[in-house]
Order: sequence, then C-alpha cells, then structure tokens
Amino acid sequence: MSLTYRTAGVDIGRKEDALRGLRDKIARTKRPEVIGDIGAFGGLFHFMGSDAVLVATTDGVGTKVEIARLLDRHEVVGTDLVHLCVNDALAMGAEPLFFLDYFSTSRLDTGIFTRVVGAMADACAAHRCALLGGETAEMPGMYVDGAYDLAGFLVGAVERARLLDVSNVREGDVCIGLPSSGLHTNGYTLARAIVARVAGRAGTSVPEVLNAPRPELRGGTLGDVLLANHRSYLEDLRTLRNAVAIRSIAHITGGGWEANLPRALPEGLGAVIDRSTWTVPPVFTLLAGMVEVADEERWRTWNMGIGLVVMVPAEDERAALRALPDAIAIGRIERATGDRRVRFVP
Amino acid sequence: MSLTYRTAGVDIGRKEDALRGLRDKIARTKRPEVIGDIGAFGGLFHFMGSDAVLVATTDGVGTKVEIARLLDRHEVVGTDLVHLCVNDALAMGAEPLFFLDYFSTSRLDTGIFTRVVGAMADACAAHRCALLGGETAEMPGMYVDGAYDLAGFLVGAVERARLLDVSNVREGDVCIGLPSSGLHTNGYTLARAIVARVAGRAGTSVPEVLNAPRPELRGGTLGDVLLANHRSYLEDLRTLRNAVAIRSIAHITGGGWEANLPRALPEGLGAVIDRSTWTVPPVFTLLAGMVEVADEERWRTWNMGIGLVVMVPAEDERAALRALPDAIAIGRIERATGDRRVRFVP
Repeated sequence: MSLTYRTAGVDIGRKEDALRGLRDKIARTKRPEVIGDIGAFGGLFHFMGSDAVLVATTDGVGTKVEIARLLDRHEVVGTDLVHLCVNDALAMGAEPLFFLDYFSTSRLDTGIFTRVVGAMADACAAHRCALLGGETAEMPGMYVDGAYDLAGFLVGAVERARLLDVSNVREGDVCIGLPSSGLHTNGYTLARAIVARVAGRAGTSVPEVLNAPRPELRGGTLGDVLLANHRSYLEDLRTLRNAVAIRSIAHITGGGWEANLPRALPEGLGAVIDRSTWTVPPVFTLLAGMVEVADEERWRTWNMGIGLVVMVPAEDERAALRALPDAIAIGRIERATGDRRVRFVP
Repeated sequence: MSLTYRTAGVDIGRKEDALRGLRDKIARTKRPEVIGDIGAFGGLFHFMGSDAVLVATTDGVGTKVEIARLLDRHEVVGTDLVHLCVNDALAMGAEPLFFLDYFSTSRLDTGIFTRVVGAMADACAAHRCALLGGETAEMPGMYVDGAYDLAGFLVGAVERARLLDVSNVREGDVCIGLPSSGLHTNGYTLARAIVARVAGRAGTSVPEVLNAPRPELRGGTLGDVLLANHRSYLEDLRTLRNAVAIRSIAHITGGGWEANLPRALPEGLGAVIDRSTWTVPPVFTLLAGMVEVADEERWRTWNMGIGLVVMVPAEDERAALRALPDAIAIGRIERATGDRRVRFVP
C-alpha cells in the first residue's frame, strides 16, 4: 500500500481547517502596528518610534527529535531549531536579533538537555543572535519515555523600506532555488513510517535500517543523511541582496512546495517549476523507493532538494546565479488561479 | 510518606544544575543590545534607534493541561498561557506588544485546538496584545494519547528610563503582595500526585476526587479551584505605577517563594515575609492535608496565595495599599547572605 504523510499520522489539512475557524478571533487581536495577515513566514510588527519592523517566528523541529534520540545525536536538533527560525525570519527580509527556546519532557535528562541547548547557543552565537531566555518544563506522564519536544522563538528586524512584500512579485519573475541539505526539519514522520515499515518487512530493527551503509548514499547511512543539519541561508541571503533586487522568498518547510511557495506570491500568481533543472538528492529517491510513496505526495511533504526559493526580476537572474555558486534558476512566475499555484514540469 | 515536588517527578535543582553548565555558552551569544543576565523574568534587548527596551518571555502551563483535559476545560490553559507571559513581562515593567504560541500533540484534535487557541486569542485581545503567529505541530508517537503541550512567547516593551532595575531595591523597602487566584500554573504535578494518591487510597478515580463537593471549599470542587485562571496583574500594575515608585516585581511561579522573590532583589538583600498578614487559601491547605506535604515543601512549590510581590519604598506603603484594595503589606527587605534569602515569620 502506498504510504502518505496523512496515513503516517500528519494531516496538514486538519491543521488548516482548525486555523480557519480561528481567523476572526485572531483578527480581533490586531493592533495598528501589525502589518499583513497570518500566513506569512513571520509575523510583522512595526515598532513605533523607529523605522524598523520586528519579525517574529516560532517553529519546532518535529519528529526529527525522534531520530536524533534513536541515534544519540541530540546536538542536531538544537542547531536546527535556530536555523529554521532564522530562515523563516529572513524570508521576510529580516536579520535575527534574539532567540528563546522551550524544552519540554517528562523527566529532564541533564546530559541531553545540555547537549541540545548547548548546540542552540552555539548556533545563536554563529548567527550573532542573542539567546535571550528559555523555559525548561518537566511534565511527568505527558511524553512517552525519553521523548522531548522543542520550540524556538526568534525575533528579527528589518528596515521598513527593505521589508519584503509579496505584492512586488511580477509575472515573468524568476525563481532562484537554493539547495537543501536534506529533509531539513520536515516530513520526518513520513520518513520514520517508511523506515519502520522496511524494518518490519525485513524483520530487523529501525536502528539497523538507519545504520546500514547504502550504495545509493555513496556508502553513507540513512541515519546520517536524515540527521544532516537544516541549512541556514542567512549568509547566502546577505550576499544575494547585495547583488540583486529580491522580490520575495519562500522557505520550503512543512507541507512541501504547494503549501509554501504560494506564501511568497500575491493572489493571482503562481510558479512553473522546471524539475529538470536540478537532481533530487538520493535520500528522497531512496526513501520513496523503499516503500511506495506517490510522486505528488513526495512534493507536498518534502523539499525535494530545494530549501529556499527566491523570486527576483528576470533581468537579475544572471547576477543572482553569479552571486551564489550553488543557486539554480528553477522556474518562473506565471498567472495562476485556483487552488494549485505550483505547476511542475516535466 | 510525605510527598515532595521531587518525588512527584519535578526536580527544580536538576534544571538549575543543567543551566549552570550552559552559562558560558549562553554568555557568548550576548550582543551589545542585551541588558542584564539570565535569571530575570524576561530577557531584555535595547532596540537601537529608539528609547525602548524589548522584553521577551517564554513559558508553558505545565501539567495544568492534564487536569484541563481530564475535566474537558481546555479554554483555561489557553487563557493562562497569555496571562503568565503578560505577568513575566510586567515584572520587568513592560506592556505587552505581541504573542506567539506553540501547540504540540501526537494527533491534532481540531475541536480542542480551536478551544485552546480561541481562548488564547481572546486573552490577547483583552490585553491589547497582537497574536502575531503560532506553530501547530503534529508529532505521532511522542505524546501519550490525547496529551498536548503549549508554549507561549511574548514580547513587550518599556521605556528605557522606566525599566525596573533590581539594583534600586533598598533595605527597609516594603513587599506588597497581590493575591493569587489559586495555584496559577505551578505545582500541578505535586497537586496531581496528591489527588492520585487520595484516589488510590479511597479506591475511587481521579475525576471523582476532583469533582467531589468539599466543605473546605464552601461546597466547591477541587477541580474548579485547580482550574481557576492564572490571574493577570496588568491592570493592577498600571494602577500601582501611577500611585507609587515601584522598585522591582517578583512573579511567584515555578519553585515558589525562594526561587522567585530573590530574582527581584540585588545580591546581599533578602526579604522577611510575615505569613500572618494573609490567610493561605483553602485549596493549598486542603491539598497539603490530604497527603502529608511538609510546610517547607509547600512554600517552595506553590505560591500559597500571593501571586505577585511588588517592592516599594517604605514611604509608599500606604499609597500602594490605597491604590489596590486587595493588596497586602506582607514583608520588608533586609540584609541577607547565603542561599536562603526569603525568611518567613512566623
């Protein structure tokens, strides 16, 4: 039977339905300083008395923590938590200012906690982002044995004049893709379901499946590639915005392409993405081949090799590709109506 | 056997040990805009180009969610999450600006989610605080069946000149206590352990213990008083700061008195608290009497009836009590050295 993100236990539609019902209540909390609506990669708050806009984001690393736990590689998720919040903020044009974390578990293991939060602090320092606070919660009986959860909160800032505004995107603009380092922090529940099914069929264990060297990964293991760090695009973006006029940015996270690329586009526009312009990294092909995962399902769950998409004017395409050696021109903005706004070719 | 917060599963010392080991790493993330050290109720960030300081807080409602679940009263924890973050920010002198939430569970129940986040939005609107964003995480297999966790993140602001600075507190200052509405959001694991033990002894169920009318509670139930909302002190503080010169504020949360009151005092000072000045609310006496809980343990786990302590100059005591009808002069600042800085009399 073909496996989907939903049958693996994550239903993106359910979340969207729930949020729709809350739209009115959330709208009533709006203050004059708030810019834009919910649905952006970061919330925007114009800080009175300055020409800066604060950009606030919150996110978690999902069940990547479960693989980190299984393979005793806890630092990965600490670093990732910072990187993914940094990426959400930069998708609005912002530089990070400060970060806070929430660490929650049933029984605190100080060794693991120190490794996770230590990696978080290192990632903050590397991004010149202050680790300004945090909360550590011990909640006996709520988590399954040994499990812990992480949430990150980041506030960044951008000059009001430099705030990225999706309404600037034009038909004919070019989509510049920046490669991902793997699954980043999304679609792990589907990946884990695949690995569990493979282990079940082969009568072996999940760690054995994760630790087996694989020719498709040039002798590397699935565990290693699944625990590659979520790439931070901050340095790339700093370089890029000095070279070209960025229109908007999409961070390809939970829900894959269709759930994220349109967040960086105005109503009435979509993108045609030419999938022949890059090679999908082997981890995605390997996972989807182990158990049948439909092509469409892969693209609406995983980033498939591109972690960030930057919209630039067509005349800036060459300058963008020159500025960032691993960037790829992957598509173009076109008119689009209806629910589907990302059109893949071939 | 006497019950403690630690035997119930929450070890405050373990958390402090873990954080101590991270002090150096966290210090390396410090930027010039950061004011003060970790340990305050909110992180402080001086926003360049303005005379404002941003105050960032994060917190969770702990296992109060478990009682809310058991009694199907989910709105309570949504409201509480906002109130406790508002209180942490006001302890630094700040007004709330915006709030973000993290909601995490193994399988999203949209009905419960809508009730929790709806209550959060209502509480934000009531505090003129923008609900600027949120993350909803579905993590199959990580939480026990039906459990969910919440983290809140709030950013407030205060004029630099009005930022509360604990170094202004003087020997002889008066401690003004503001009543709590119950346990607020702390010590629920101990409360739940007590209720579970009572149910076990009586051969009945936890819901039956929670739903039984009790003469000590004037015929009310333990469930009702345990699900009283965490009181927001924002209006009180607005009134008070127009009437007196506030030196500092302590929000009595996790770890009770000794863990929180000294956070609002400079090195070398402590507080003598006269416990005869107020009556401990019946919920604390009832809980601690159901199962033996040592007196000292109660005071280092629960707020015992006072949720906020405001330090004011001695000459402002009468003005403070006049401004807030339910405020009580509960103690005085004195010299204190050593680990124990809160001295109770009698």
